[in-house]
Amino acid sequence: MAEASRTSEARRDAVFGRWVILSPARSRRPTDLKSHAAANPSPGAGNCAPKPSCPFCLGRESECAPEIFRVPAPPDASPWQIRVIENLYPALRRDADPPAPEEQAAQVLPGERAVLGFGFHDVVIETPRHDVRLWDLDADGVADVLLAYARRVLQLMEHPAVKYVQVFKNHGASAGASMAHSHSQMLGTPFVPPSVITRLNCMKEVFESLGKCSLCEFQSNDILVSETQNFSAVVPFAASYPFEIWIIPRRHHPFFHEIDKDMALDLGSLLRTMLQKLSKQLNEPPFNFMIHSSPFEVSSSCLPYVHWFLQIVPQLSVTGGFEIGSGCYINPVFPEDAAKILRELDSSI
Amino acid sequence: MAEASRTSEARRDAVFGRWVILSPARSRRPTDLKSHAAANPSPGAGNCAPKPSCPFCLGRESECAPEIFRVPAPPDASPWQIRVIENLYPALRRDADPPAPEEQAAQVLPGERAVLGFGFHDVVIETPRHDVRLWDLDADGVADVLLAYARRVLQLMEHPAVKYVQVFKNHGASAGASMAHSHSQMLGTPFVPPSVITRLNCMKEVFESLGKCSLCEFQSNDILVSETQNFSAVVPFAASYPFEIWIIPRRHHPFFHEIDKDMALDLGSLLRTMLQKLSKQLNEPPFNFMIHSSPFEVSSSCLPYVHWFLQIVPQLSVTGGFEIGSGCYINPVFPEDAAKILRELDSSI
Repeated sequence: MAEASRTSEARRDAVFGRWVILSPARSRRPTDLKSHAAANPSPGAGNCAPKPSCPFCLGRESECAPEIFRVPAPPDASPWQIRVIENLYPALRRDADPPAPEEQAAQVLPGERAVLGFGFHDVVIETPRHDVRLWDLDADGVADVLLAYARRVLQLMEHPAVKYVQVFKNHGASAGASMAHSHSQMLGTPFVPPSVITRLNCMKEVFESLGKCSLCEFQSNDILVSETQNFSAVVPFAASYPFEIWIIPRRHHPFFHEIDKDMALDLGSLLRTMLQKLSKQLNEPPFNFMIHSSPFEVSSSCLPYVHWFLQIVPQLSVTGGFEIGSGCYINPVFPEDAAKILRELDSSI
Repeated sequence: MAEASRTSEARRDAVFGRWVILSPARSRRPTDLKSHAAANPSPGAGNCAPKPSCPFCLGRESECAPEIFRVPAPPDASPWQIRVIENLYPALRRDADPPAPEEQAAQVLPGERAVLGFGFHDVVIETPRHDVRLWDLDADGVADVLLAYARRVLQLMEHPAVKYVQVFKNHGASAGASMAHSHSQMLGTPFVPPSVITRLNCMKEVFESLGKCSLCEFQSNDILVSETQNFSAVVPFAASYPFEIWIIPRRHHPFFHEIDKDMALDLGSLLRTMLQKLSKQLNEPPFNFMIHSSPFEVSSSCLPYVHWFLQIVPQLSVTGGFEIGSGCYINPVFPEDAAKILRELDSSI
């Protein structure tokens, strides 16, 4: 097997500039890595039947925070297919005073100054059914979820004090999900988050040195898992996490929220397949996915090197003091090995 | 109580430049936050008696990777008090070829290039006894552990290809500890890790804007937990994690490894008290601590703003997609509230 000959290697990622130490685990092969988060409240795993106490389920809409919009279901089906609602326990508050222009975050030095906790924290309920996981939907269903994200991002960018919207999904308790019913979240922040700034700076450095966008071409076909007309799914060359996957638009584009229906259907199909593969290979692990887009007010000089993508991180290992302290991750599975395993895996469940 | 009136707030840290969203949990008070990691393999908790199978215990030295040095115990006591050994499963390998000067990491662009996995990964066994936690040692015992760290860092900095040494401790399985026997680790890397670069850049920005070191003075006494002749223990103004503590030398100094015996005794005493307080307040949580020092080859122009410190992070919450995606943390406990609780807590166990 390819991985038998691997020795440790340090790689620097082309998007975040992060170092990763690829250090093959002595005692086991990449195919042995499985999730042990069995107590995970995962509705599709059969351990969590539809719950009358779940406020995200059909018929309990009145127990949720206010609805922002809903995607109607086809006639004769359920009253709704997707609901976008306010978070009942928001990390940032839409009713707080937004910072005045002169107090806006771009002006806040890292001198320990504070701004008020203004912002938006919304939830996307991906299905009315408690026992359905995102990848149990068909490609159209996943596409509709992606289009709901984009529609809400477009609404939030109308607010002048919102500088960025982080779209993300937590699946499983140990990945941060407090509700088992399939949902995603987004936070509209009054500042551009630190990782976004780091990413733009790194992609700029690559562009200025090598004259190319970090994501328009990738190192080799060895890291490719699957490809569609519009997207490539790869295990990134310097993956921080074992079996991490990036789904990258093949055409250079800075903003996720400008996705159209055809693109969403293509992405929905590929995302669904990748989640099925991870679930099958890794024993339905807890996972996170995050959409990495561009700040709304990005300057036109940045456009040649900013390229949006979706990152999927299965939660298989614990983050310890080395990672917290150094910002550098230790990954026991070489990206080429993870990509080969996922590429060759039949995703049908 | 002070926390009753808290509303969400975003703060920017003066050392790492990170944004944190302070968002008081709706449903509970800061004093209700406890660790539930009961399955934690913590020897001192009484659930893990001395184990004949533990290779870090007295008498099983031959089962470990090679010893680098030991700190002898007083006469008539055990043959050793502290052992510094190689890690049996190193993330980086001391027997790999170090990068040639022209291939050294400083020259590696974030263009996905790779360097070999050269480096050092060592373990500090803090006590020969399986049932003793670091904070069960007396202040002299903790000081000796700190001096062992410093001695090993000094040895590693002699190697021209080692650019940084990250010293860290993982306590508890969910904080990344694979062995229950009390130990710490250090990794000597052939590159300056990403968080160190970010930290230096941020402290430079503060110094250039405000003309002061980020750590020589702190915002207010409200965040102070305890003070000794040489060190202050604070909950940082923009703490990313609930009940996070920084122990900061009161005198400006860039390098941890230049600590002397008196300083080590003072720090050992304060570190011990802080770990006791966290254990008592939070139900012996899993935790990490990390020493943040300066790269060995830091230029003299950086010296006015680089100030080493020790960061303690109790693991009480899960890192989800928002944190992974944005690099921004949500902390439900205001630093001033955490500091007050810890300040007023009697640390005796």
